[in-house]
Amino acid sequence: MRNRVFVNAVDTCGHPLELVVVDGRFAEIGAKVHAGDGVEVVDLQGRVVLPGFVDGHIHLDKSFIGDRWHPHQTTTSLRERLAVEKRELAAAPPILERANALIRQAASFGTIAMRSHVDVDATTGLGNLHAVMEAREAWRGLVDIELVAFPQAGVLSCPGTAELLDAAIAEGAEVVGGIDPTNMDGDADGQLDVIFGIAEKRGAKIDIHLHEPGQQGIEQLHRIAVRAQALGMQGRVAVSHAYALGDVAPDVVDTVAASLAKAGVSIMTNAPGNRAFPPVLQLRAAGVRVFTGNDNIQDAWWPYGNGDMLQRAMLVGYRSGFYIDDDLHVALDMATDAAAAVLGGDYALRVGNAADFVVVDAPNAAAAVATAPLERTIFRQGAAWIGRALA
Amino acid sequence: MRNRVFVNAVDTCGHPLELVVVDGRFAEIGAKVHAGDGVEVVDLQGRVVLPGFVDGHIHLDKSFIGDRWHPHQTTTSLRERLAVEKRELAAAPPILERANALIRQAASFGTIAMRSHVDVDATTGLGNLHAVMEAREAWRGLVDIELVAFPQAGVLSCPGTAELLDAAIAEGAEVVGGIDPTNMDGDADGQLDVIFGIAEKRGAKIDIHLHEPGQQGIEQLHRIAVRAQALGMQGRVAVSHAYALGDVAPDVVDTVAASLAKAGVSIMTNAPGNRAFPPVLQLRAAGVRVFTGNDNIQDAWWPYGNGDMLQRAMLVGYRSGFYIDDDLHVALDMATDAAAAVLGGDYALRVGNAADFVVVDAPNAAAAVATAPLERTIFRQGAAWIGRALA
Repeated sequence: MRNRVFVNAVDTCGHPLELVVVDGRFAEIGAKVHAGDGVEVVDLQGRVVLPGFVDGHIHLDKSFIGDRWHPHQTTTSLRERLAVEKRELAAAPPILERANALIRQAASFGTIAMRSHVDVDATTGLGNLHAVMEAREAWRGLVDIELVAFPQAGVLSCPGTAELLDAAIAEGAEVVGGIDPTNMDGDADGQLDVIFGIAEKRGAKIDIHLHEPGQQGIEQLHRIAVRAQALGMQGRVAVSHAYALGDVAPDVVDTVAASLAKAGVSIMTNAPGNRAFPPVLQLRAAGVRVFTGNDNIQDAWWPYGNGDMLQRAMLVGYRSGFYIDDDLHVALDMATDAAAAVLGGDYALRVGNAADFVVVDAPNAAAAVATAPLERTIFRQGAAWIGRALA
Repeated sequence: MRNRVFVNAVDTCGHPLELVVVDGRFAEIGAKVHAGDGVEVVDLQGRVVLPGFVDGHIHLDKSFIGDRWHPHQTTTSLRERLAVEKRELAAAPPILERANALIRQAASFGTIAMRSHVDVDATTGLGNLHAVMEAREAWRGLVDIELVAFPQAGVLSCPGTAELLDAAIAEGAEVVGGIDPTNMDGDADGQLDVIFGIAEKRGAKIDIHLHEPGQQGIEQLHRIAVRAQALGMQGRVAVSHAYALGDVAPDVVDTVAASLAKAGVSIMTNAPGNRAFPPVLQLRAAGVRVFTGNDNIQDAWWPYGNGDMLQRAMLVGYRSGFYIDDDLHVALDMATDAAAAVLGGDYALRVGNAADFVVVDAPNAAAAVATAPLERTIFRQGAAWIGRALA
């Protein structure tokens, strides 16, 4: 592997940056590096260098990317939505084909790791999981993919699901999923008993979809925090969406945030378009890790999304009222380091790490987030990879 | 000028589309056209053809595009914000240079017409207007630019502004602006007397920035509707932002919407990220014309925006909860035909019109709005123009 020095770049703050890559890893990073003779020089033309993006929440088995356009269908209940989804997906190309298309598109924007939820329920069994595991194998070494066994249809209310979740972890999913324990199963402790039980038994992590609103959702977060702390699962439990945190008064947020921080429970938000969502800065100030992900991408749930985590960071900032550079950096952190910490990976620009990075046509990280330019080049182990051409 | 036939395209619904262009105008539009011999054939590779975009609200004198990154500065009052803006802009390149850069960028995304507000106040005088008028001349025939004399600092509270607004219209601005009559001037009827007076005297249109919240803003809308109707100005008065329509109960919206529709007052929203805004579908159902624009683009007010009206349509849909194709078409209409009607232009894909259109890498208009792909080609009078390369 040819050694390279990358010159004429800028760092997140817009300061001069050079990078030396030896054997695919960062050997030196600084304003002015000392490359040896005979290394290949790559001119980054004043562009900003960002770490590879980490998508903390995606559904690789659901997207229609790689298939024709599926017009969104209106439904009046969750049951109907799930039926529509099953019908639409049954008529779409196989999961492996669609998952590959979505991973390729996400990678072309600079995503190098992702946590994918995969439906596991009594009718689906482990079929979706096996297909997404096959896609994961195909991308091994290129995009790191962590899998969540996701009980989309509920746990207790969908007999057989508990056993399937356990089997999914045994077969290679790293994370036990959950969903709206009260609203889906009518028995919060019942669902939490099952998923925390599997996590404890298998040494798995936990990621719970929580759409429950207001005080109901807050109580659920307290329950989850208590269990995470009791089981010593700090840093291994996440709650996705947690809309309730956007519904309640700031002092209520502060109280539950203290519990979440103490229990090491992370919060994922994709900054939805027309729904209140967690107050990012307030949670971070309280010590809660907040990360982001694209969630649904052109699927039966909604038509938006393209897999780009830089655009997702922009939407997080746009929806959160992030104007100053420091806040824009928070949005980027949610799509890089914070998400990486949840997945357990280290994709930072640091000497010794794999030389994976994204070059974006912007003068610094704040500008990259605020404007999310599409022109970018992705480098994996120091070599240009699939990506959008530089303009 | 070489005649051309464009084949292998799709229309907004995804149906086959061909276009014949003769002497720069559409001569035939249909699923299967009859081009004569010897015309040049252009293969659009299955992409969707959209009309040119119309930005119904932009500030060409404010953006830092074309200059270095200006980190957003926090302020605690409107007065302070205006002072920061003046200071930052004084240190930036001349307006002509920045306006040219922004128009070029917007045009490269497919914008062919825009309504630009331009600051007019006692300290600025007509300086900004003259600079933007110079940019307008430079782009004449390429991008149609309508100008609003915008009293950013108030009318009555900023002595001399009324005379300057009148002079601005006399010199070539087509629209008299206004801003928060009660909050800025403490005298709603006083400000409205001035701006409606100038509009009546000069035959100008009106576009009022209205950030006033809740019931106060609703009362202002009623006042504006009453005046528009009394002066027979149907179709010539717009209110930008009108945040109040997002603050009040649906029945209050219905009542004022009926007044706005009867008076022919249009509403502009850019779908702000963290502020309630007008309910688009409810207003349209009541007969109100609702259009969109980018508003501030990387300026002293906020760091977001890139000038792309297709991304703006996506944000309108994202924020409004538009999921079904019909609703996504509404978002596109707000960025094309509805905005064009406010400006008084006709940029529709229609036989006889100039052959201006945008080719987007999407299978139909709904997909184009939901995903806002950047790859596109702009055609003006049938010829490829500045634009983003097809992927």
